[in-house]
Amino acid sequence: MAAKKQKVFFISDSTGITIESLGQSLFAQFPDTEFVKTVFPFVSDAQEVQRVIASISAVMEAEPAPPIVFTSLADKSLLELFLAHDIAVLDIFSTFIPQLESRLGTKAKHAVGETHGVGSPLKYVQRIEALDFTLNHDDGTKIIDLANADIVLTGVSRSGKTPTCLYLAMHYNLKAANYPLVDADFESPALPRAIAGVQDRVFGLTLSPRQLHKIRQERRPGSRYASLEQCEYEVHRAEAIFRATRLPYLDSTSISIEEIATTILQRLKLRARPTDSQLPASTSQ
Amino acid sequence: MAAKKQKVFFISDSTGITIESLGQSLFAQFPDTEFVKTVFPFVSDAQEVQRVIASISAVMEAEPAPPIVFTSLADKSLLELFLAHDIAVLDIFSTFIPQLESRLGTKAKHAVGETHGVGSPLKYVQRIEALDFTLNHDDGTKIIDLANADIVLTGVSRSGKTPTCLYLAMHYNLKAANYPLVDADFESPALPRAIAGVQDRVFGLTLSPRQLHKIRQERRPGSRYASLEQCEYEVHRAEAIFRATRLPYLDSTSISIEEIATTILQRLKLRARPTDSQLPASTSQ
Repeated sequence: MAAKKQKVFFISDSTGITIESLGQSLFAQFPDTEFVKTVFPFVSDAQEVQRVIASISAVMEAEPAPPIVFTSLADKSLLELFLAHDIAVLDIFSTFIPQLESRLGTKAKHAVGETHGVGSPLKYVQRIEALDFTLNHDDGTKIIDLANADIVLTGVSRSGKTPTCLYLAMHYNLKAANYPLVDADFESPALPRAIAGVQDRVFGLTLSPRQLHKIRQERRPGSRYASLEQCEYEVHRAEAIFRATRLPYLDSTSISIEEIATTILQRLKLRARPTDSQLPASTSQ
Repeated sequence: MAAKKQKVFFISDSTGITIESLGQSLFAQFPDTEFVKTVFPFVSDAQEVQRVIASISAVMEAEPAPPIVFTSLADKSLLELFLAHDIAVLDIFSTFIPQLESRLGTKAKHAVGETHGVGSPLKYVQRIEALDFTLNHDDGTKIIDLANADIVLTGVSRSGKTPTCLYLAMHYNLKAANYPLVDADFESPALPRAIAGVQDRVFGLTLSPRQLHKIRQERRPGSRYASLEQCEYEVHRAEAIFRATRLPYLDSTSISIEEIATTILQRLKLRARPTDSQLPASTSQ
């Protein structure tokens, strides 16, 4: 396992989510180092910066390797406070903003926390509506409204439908419904009638029977539901349905919810519904 | 409104979520430009890159302003294909990896899609468990297990509790429960008994009565529930309870779910439960 420890600080005038995500992408390329992370969100004035600098200075005195400091501060004068303390920072604003200014032929406004806010309450409402729809269509019981779904995920119980639907609703404003395949559905290789009518919006999820067994064991240890035999039966029957009906489907065994969601959007050629959320909202063409 | 349109491409060997989020932070500093975004995720070989280059070249021929291209490709040889076509890219890997290599005294492994995967199935299960807990504690009806909650959000109906709980579960692996304040709770300025026992983990959400009225109108137009008068009453009573019980609380009227979640973690000094998800997992100290 990782032997070398490296302290990392993320300092943002907003949530810090973007730079922490950036850091994680980069750190994955250094598997022999263990990165110990601290995030300081909402750092927006000199007093806050001085508090952060005190924390960093304490680490610099205590440890041989200086900490790595990522910042995304729109206000240049705050950035200068770090430099005055000989703290080298990796700053995404000063790295990319000058290049964008030159490409766009216009000056950045350097306003703090510009990724903040919900902007238009109407668009906020749209995001909540997508989440509500998904929460109300989570177990296949209320199927009356499936015609209004942007996407319907199907698969055996615990194949990752619910978290993926919630992710699609939260990040892409999509009305994502969830239709679980149960024993009665396995008697025929056809799609269950409830979702056959909207097949162009249906996507299948599968996973390895062994992984399914592991997940179900956590939930109901020792049950027939969790047995490897039952998991193998359900997965094989579900995949037979996907193949027989030419349904697009994905094996979720070893990929993340983020990847499952992105892949589904790509394969169904779906785009996000408009939102002004600070999280990624558009998708591939 | 924004007049000038600028096409932007995001090209990633993974989901593209990180660079798109980075782009959105940067673009917010240029409010006079409308950025028209296209994401190409999972671009991992030369053939895929050539397909992307064809799309970009088509835009370059059709429009006076060249598109802005953000990339995060671990494989340098793929990056060189863009340069061979005179396409200037803003690449987060070639920007930051050399600096990290020099700071860490070690070479990056330049492996594709290293942010992929769920890694340990156990940690994946933990994330799903947090989501399950949150889904099962979404309406205050099943309160028996509140002692196991990492955090309990309270406030009037439609104050943002559910999306914030789901965000805390999905991104920080926290068991986030939700206790709505209803008319019966407003008779006393005390916290409802069900949550008084775990007050150290309870956080209040409030919002402007006018915004609440707007949100409820979308849901049940013309109802007493949605009336401005009822919204004013509930918000004032809820805030009175928060003040009387010295509960930390936040006005969610004009901030995003991401900001609400980050602020709550900071104020309750909560940290994320361990996860190997590619999304931000740690939080402020």
